[in-house]
This record gives sequence, structure tokens and C-alpha cells, in this order.
Amino acid sequence: MKNCLVAQSGGPTAVINSSVVGVVEGNQKLRYYDNVYGGINGIEGVLQNKIINLSELSDEDLEILKYTPSSALGSCRYKMKDFNVDEKEYIKVFDILDALDVETLFYIGGNDSMDTVSKLSQYAKLKGIPKKIIGIPKTIDNDLFHTDHTPGYGSAAKYISTITLETYLDSSVYSNNGIFILETMGRDTGWLAASASLAKLNGKSVVDFIYLPETVFSKEQFLADVENRFQRNNKVYIVASEGLKDENGEYLFEVKSSNKHDSFSHVQLGGVGDYLKSLIIKNKITPRIKVLELGVTQRSAMHLASQTDILEACRLGKEAVRYSTEGHTGCMVGIERIQNSPYEIETLRVEACKVANSIKYFPHQWITPEKNNVTEKAVEYIAPLIRGSHKIITESGLPKYIKLY
Amino acid sequence: MKNCLVAQSGGPTAVINSSVVGVVEGNQKLRYYDNVYGGINGIEGVLQNKIINLSELSDEDLEILKYTPSSALGSCRYKMKDFNVDEKEYIKVFDILDALDVETLFYIGGNDSMDTVSKLSQYAKLKGIPKKIIGIPKTIDNDLFHTDHTPGYGSAAKYISTITLETYLDSSVYSNNGIFILETMGRDTGWLAASASLAKLNGKSVVDFIYLPETVFSKEQFLADVENRFQRNNKVYIVASEGLKDENGEYLFEVKSSNKHDSFSHVQLGGVGDYLKSLIIKNKITPRIKVLELGVTQRSAMHLASQTDILEACRLGKEAVRYSTEGHTGCMVGIERIQNSPYEIETLRVEACKVANSIKYFPHQWITPEKNNVTEKAVEYIAPLIRGSHKIITESGLPKYIKLY
Repeated sequence: MKNCLVAQSGGPTAVINSSVVGVVEGNQKLRYYDNVYGGINGIEGVLQNKIINLSELSDEDLEILKYTPSSALGSCRYKMKDFNVDEKEYIKVFDILDALDVETLFYIGGNDSMDTVSKLSQYAKLKGIPKKIIGIPKTIDNDLFHTDHTPGYGSAAKYISTITLETYLDSSVYSNNGIFILETMGRDTGWLAASASLAKLNGKSVVDFIYLPETVFSKEQFLADVENRFQRNNKVYIVASEGLKDENGEYLFEVKSSNKHDSFSHVQLGGVGDYLKSLIIKNKITPRIKVLELGVTQRSAMHLASQTDILEACRLGKEAVRYSTEGHTGCMVGIERIQNSPYEIETLRVEACKVANSIKYFPHQWITPEKNNVTEKAVEYIAPLIRGSHKIITESGLPKYIKLY
Repeated sequence: MKNCLVAQSGGPTAVINSSVVGVVEGNQKLRYYDNVYGGINGIEGVLQNKIINLSELSDEDLEILKYTPSSALGSCRYKMKDFNVDEKEYIKVFDILDALDVETLFYIGGNDSMDTVSKLSQYAKLKGIPKKIIGIPKTIDNDLFHTDHTPGYGSAAKYISTITLETYLDSSVYSNNGIFILETMGRDTGWLAASASLAKLNGKSVVDFIYLPETVFSKEQFLADVENRFQRNNKVYIVASEGLKDENGEYLFEVKSSNKHDSFSHVQLGGVGDYLKSLIIKNKITPRIKVLELGVTQRSAMHLASQTDILEACRLGKEAVRYSTEGHTGCMVGIERIQNSPYEIETLRVEACKVANSIKYFPHQWITPEKNNVTEKAVEYIAPLIRGSHKIITESGLPKYIKLY
């Protein structure tokens, strides 16, 4: 008996379950493992033996799962201790995997999760435990190194740019319009905010300004930008990343987390849109300002997911299985972009420790000199990732989704 | 030469342009008017002679227009004076219509717009002006009398219930979850908030509580509801209408409008979600609370519009043309539900003055005795309205939309 186990960690995405289905389908093709188990609530749940058997799912359920947003196996934000300090958890994880004849653990997550992949695989090597740990990337933030982009980002970008287009139309119907501020996620990086640049009407971007956390936010420049544009056009559409910081590196609006379940101690942010709104009002540009904070919709809107993204998420799951059959461990499956037009990718292996705990920022050369928008190069990079849509499986006019536990 | 003119007024909806296309298509079929003109920015723009010729649009543009959200002709919130007090505007409107040989004005809007339809038609009758004014309903609020429901509501309901399902999945992935609060529009009525009840997983509603403005909000009852459910399930999904009021009739969180362009002097609301969040935190139920304010997405998300809604919006436009050829004026085209299963409607005429300036509330008998949810009767009423989806016309992965001016 030889089994594998797949689990999900960190913030959900629209297509994170497509990667789970990719693992199952990859194994169906290669017939390498007898069972594909699913760990509930990531490594935190595996440590509590919360495990189900995904090989028992019907083909119909697998098809629904492929198009179900958010971690159907549950998730966690759980940082494993350094095994040199305390190896108890490591012993426990491998005991549990052993009891189920699990040879390989597939871990779907972002940079924090690749830390778990790296640590577990290092420990196994050190102790001579013949088990493989392979990471599958996911994050709407698109901030992982050594992969052209991450599954989850394309769908978030498609949702953001579609909503940008639709709310732009909504915000420009009156003879006397106002200012619209769209706040996207992006604590550290501007990849999500940048995707609003794709929203075009008659070939012209509908967004006036995009502010990214990669550049220092200047109040003076912002107010000059907005005032000039408002006087000229009688309307301004602004996109701002939640992670904007001032010259002292302080978030423009910071809410300290009292949230104990995020043990990676990230700061919980919110309110940059409201901050900008009050800045505009105080400076008497106009009182007619609408703020839309997209919140978790941008990571859960499977109803508008990118077909490219779904297929890639699934493919990386399949590739992870293939890499495991070749004996690899301690690695993450990455994406290499072969060409942009027609768009074509290949997969690659990268050491998980090179991805863990680090952040790939939006490139400065893709930010305009005025630091208030992104360049055409950025649009060219993002554009292929939002292509295509899938036929949603519906029931009574609503998407049909599945939860596995 | 005999022409007609169509204009849009009030807040946009996802399908308001489908009604414009309905007018054009209705006339193409009946060949009654030589030209269908479009008034820009509602009656406000018509008074400024801002008028285009919709008969010059290509079939392709009309098809795109049918699936473009938000008022493509622009909108206004303009209250006409009582003609007994000041008839200058009335003389001007009819002069402008005369100059273009416009025999009929079709006005797409909500209860405020039906006030305009009523006043203009009364004035024309009084002065013996042989022009017809016919209203076509639209509002996501679904608060118009004498029509089973309003175009725009079905699509908003479909968006709200889909987002409810997707964010519910997102909000329940951890072993230690929190409370999710979805804030919908609905200044006066609970129709929008109620639509979240359609979101089901395995046949069971995912929403724990829905609070509507039709009942007095009780802090004590709310805190008891939330605390009990949180203790039992470790998560609570709450839907709240922006218009919730306390026992003194005060909005739970009121932002006085400094917005001059809403001359109907409605109060601009926001923040009931944040109010409820702070209430839960103060009462130490849990600090893990997410608030999502849907904002204008719920009225502009054509990418997820209901096919039923699109078809009905279009049909009412066509019917308005037919009624005009029969000589009717001062009326609104309404919807009568013939049967629920299979769903079937008919159209009817109703005097615009009976619809103007009044509000159809969500029925008290469809609210649960605990006043924290809606009944199965409400679900049965809303369910057919969200059925079906259309094939979005896309370009580079984004919907292709059109703006007419």
C-alpha cells in the first residue's frame, strides 16, 4: 500500500481546489498511489489526524470540486517550530503519515506554506525518513519567487478588472459625477491593484490612477493627481492597494490585529480607501466620493474565474504527482512562461526554501515615472492570465459548490 | 415623421440597457416610429437638448448594449417642479420633443422617475398636447407597487446570493472561524438582503441571520442571536440591509448627505456592517469579524446577470412601445406573475401616479417570528427571478461593454 496526502494552507483562492483535483487526476493517470488522502485544515489538522479519503469521491463530485472556490479541505495559518528547537510536531506528523502509508505530502499554499514544505522535507532528509514533501503554489497575491505567476492570481485579476469596468460604468452616469476609489487586497505587493489596468472601454483604460505599495505614497502628489484630473474630466477612478505606506513606512490606515489565529503575525489591514476619501474631502476637491473595498470577493469569485487559471492550477497538481513519482522532495512546482503570444507555459521545480518567507514585489520598471499607474508591459504580463471562462455548473440559478468536511 | 425618445433615470441596474434595447427592438418589429432617440442624463439632459439617435446603432452595438450594465444613456436625479407652481420646464421639454417630432417619451426608472412620468403626462393632457409618456420600471430595490417585481432586482439578487455562497465558503475554512457580515443595499426595504436566503449548500441555507429594515432592530436580540449561534457553530454568517433602524427610527449608522446632486434628498447611508461589528466586539463575542459592503457591485454586475431578468427588462421595453401605439399615456408597464412553476409572467399597465413616490415594503408575513430571517415563501418568490445566465460577449477575457455618449 502506497498513498499520498494533499492539504491546503493559507488564504483561499478561487482555484485552490482545482489543484487538489489535479493531484487526484494526476494520480488517476499515473496510477502511482493507491489512495489520495485529503488533510483537513492543513498541517494543523493533519497533526490532529483530521484526514479524509479523496479517492472515494465520485467523478461528479470531483468535477464540482474543480469549480468550487475556497479551500474545500479547510485551511490553517500554522507556523511549524524550528525542528532544532522542538521536534515533537515533526515526529507526530511523520507518525500519522506512516500510519496511513503516506509516501508523499502535497502542500498547496503561499510563501508561508513553502516554509512548512521546506522544514518537513529537511527534517525527513535529516532523519532518513523516506517521505516526500512537495509544494503547489497558490496565492492571489502573486508574490512568490521562482514562478512566473501563481495560480489564483489570474482569477483575482479577472474579477478585479471586470468589477473595475462595471463600477466605472456605474460611477459615470450623472452629468455631475464624483470620484470612485477601488480598494484591492495586496498587503505588500501591487500585483492585484495593477490588474485593474486591464479594464478598458473602446481600447482606453478606464482607470485614472493606480497606487501600489511598492512606491512611497505621497499625499501631495496624490492630491495634485486627483484635483487636476477631476477638474478636467469631472470624474476620477482610483485604484489603491490596501498596503499603501507613507514615507515613514507606516500603513496609511492600520488596524492592529487582535486576531490570535494568524500566528505568522501579519498586520490585519483595512481602510486605505476610507483614508483617501477623507483626504480628498479635507482638501475640498469634492464630497462626492464612493469607496468600494473588494474584500474576500476577489479571492472567492469562482463564478468569474479565469479558465487559464483553472487549467494551470489543475496542471500544477498533476505535475506535482509526476515529480513525486520521480523521487523529488522539498520542492515547489513553478510556472515558466515560454511565450506570451500565443501564451504558453511550462512547469519547473524550484527548491521550496527559495520560495519560503520571501516576497516578490511588483517590478519598479512597470510603474510609471509619476508613480500613479502601471505601464503597458504590466498589462501585457497580466492579460493572458485572465483569458477564458468556464461553464459554471449551476443549480436553480446558482453555482453548485461542494464542501468536503 | 413620427419619433420616440427613451431616457434613463435614477440609480443604474445591470439590465437597465436591456429595456432601452427592448424599446428599439419593439419598434423594429412594429415599425411605428421613424426614429428612436435616446435622451442623455434623463430628463435633466433632455432639457438641455442632449439627445442622440439610437436608430443609427448597428445590430452589433445593440447586442452589446443589451448586455452592458449601468445607464448607457446616463442618468439623473432630477425632480420636476409642480407645474401649477412653475411650468417653464414643462414648456421647454415639450418644445424640445416637438422639434424632434417625438410623439412618445419612454422613461426608465423607479418611483421617483414615475413621478416625472405622471407629471409630464398630466401636463400634456391638461394642455391638450398630443404626446404620450410611458414609464418602464427599473430598480434593484424591488420596491415599486403594482408590479410583481422590477427589472434589475433579479440580477442583483443573483449577484448577492452567489457572493453569499462564495464568501460563506471563504469564511469557514479555518478550524477557528469568525463572524461574517454582508451588508447589502436597501435603504428602506429588505428585498435585496432577503435574496441572500437563496444561497444554499447541500440544500441548506448558508446564512444564519438576515436583518431587514422592515422590523425594528433590537440590539439585545441581535447579540443573543449571534452569541448563541457562535457558541454552537464557531461561525456565524449575517446579512444586514444598510437601512436597519433602531426603536427610535434612527438609522444604525447614519451619514448625512452632503451630496447636492440628489435633489430627492434621500439620506446617504453606509456603515451598518461596521456598526454591527463593533457591537459584537464590544460584547466580547469574538474579535474575528469580517465585514463586506457590496456597494455598487450589486447593481452593476452584468457579468452575473439573471437571464430571466434580462429577458423581462427587454420585454417591458417592447411592451411599452406596443402600449404607446395603442394610445396609452401616463402609465407604467408592470409585471404580473401568472404562476411560479413553471414560472410565467404577463405584462400590465398601471397608472404612473399610483407607483410614484411610494415604497413597497418586504411583506411582514415573509419575515420569521424571530425577525432574524425570511421564510420559505420569500425564497419561492425570489427563486425564479435569478434563473438562467447569458453568454457574455467578451474581448481579451473581459466583458465587452458600450457607452453611448
